[in-house]
Amino acid sequence: MVRELTIQTRGQGLYEFTRELQALVAAAGLAEGLCTVMVRHTSASLVIQENAEPSARRDLDAWLNRLVKEGDPLYTHTAEGPDDMPSHIKSALTSTTLGIPIVGGVLGLGTWQGVYLWEHRRHGAARRVLVHIA
Amino acid sequence: MVRELTIQTRGQGLYEFTRELQALVAAAGLAEGLCTVMVRHTSASLVIQENAEPSARRDLDAWLNRLVKEGDPLYTHTAEGPDDMPSHIKSALTSTTLGIPIVGGVLGLGTWQGVYLWEHRRHGAARRVLVHIA
Amino acid sequence: MVRELTIQTRGQGLYEFTRELQALVAAAGLAEGLCTVMVRHTSASLVIQENAEPSARRDLDAWLNRLVKEGDPLYTHTAEGPDDMPSHIKSALTSTTLGIPIVGGVLGLGTWQGVYLWEHRRHGAARRVLVHIA
Repeated sequence: MVRELTIQTRGQGLYEFTRELQALVAAAGLAEGLCTVMVRHTSASLVIQENAEPSARRDLDAWLNRLVKEGDPLYTHTAEGPDDMPSHIKSALTSTTLGIPIVGGVLGLGTWQGVYLWEHRRHGAARRVLVHIA
Repeated sequence: MVRELTIQTRGQGLYEFTRELQALVAAAGLAEGLCTVMVRHTSASLVIQENAEPSARRDLDAWLNRLVKEGDPLYTHTAEGPDDMPSHIKSALTSTTLGIPIVGGVLGLGTWQGVYLWEHRRHGAARRVLVHIA
Repeated sequence: MVRELTIQTRGQGLYEFTRELQALVAAAGLAEGLCTVMVRHTSASLVIQENAEPSARRDLDAWLNRLVKEGDPLYTHTAEGPDDMPSHIKSALTSTTLGIPIVGGVLGLGTWQGVYLWEHRRHGAARRVLVHIA
């Protein structure tokens, strides 16, 4: 089965959607299986990260912002705003798709893992994530 | 079903193969499913990126070339040429495998997404990509 | 089928588990299929890399250690030790999940590809990897 989730972002940072994904897995009713997730944009990405400390997610976003700067004279693709080309680079350095095994009817994540959409644009957007469960 | 695509590159940069991949998905005849792609090399990678503006892909390649330099005195693995170790690093920083849900008989990509092989070696090669559809 | 592998690490670096993964694929008895792997931690990652030269893996680890430094004044998440926040960043820059097609009853890796767990913490740990084969 394939479903689509919409995640509303409000600027750069990591937005958890583990619960929404888990609800789709529960609805599929499979004891074992595979849940594949893909973000349908090239200026946002997906990441499985630490779900306990918000400071870890803030540091991740701050570190990547420092590595991939706005206004870099290297950029020629600048028509869509100063945060557009950095967003594409951040997307390439992180992940667009994830494959998560299902065990015991739930996502087989570790205790400290959550699933996040990582927004790279300064302005939020309604981000679409495709979910395949089989 | 598993198939192999061969993508001939002519030096560093991103080479789109969305159409070739879509043809395999069409041949499989599935309304819903999952298309998994893996590049069988460690000096090239896979990425889902912006399909409209060639400048975005050129900037991606230029940015990564500046981050991962040739001739870095840190390298000890130098026997296969100055672009070999940077290629392995670039491969590790991007993706070797992608999982793309199939919806309505086609790849569920967003409007501005294309699937690319990213060549990291200076000389082109015949790059093999394995495709699993189920 | 879903199985779990445990990989004991002894500090930072890449640990190959291609053979253990291949044994699970052989046990599944599928001629064609898909093997999906996920590491259940956010301070270690997965990577398909060069299996011939240990120097390539050492350079990878050294390069990433130089890019993602310990003691960076940017970090606010420091309670779990100086190597904790760098580990989360390295995990985000590499991969948490991989999808590997199965062909002819074996993992469809290229000649020079091996599957590695990449330990980012200074102290080793028993790392759990979930494997889905279908």
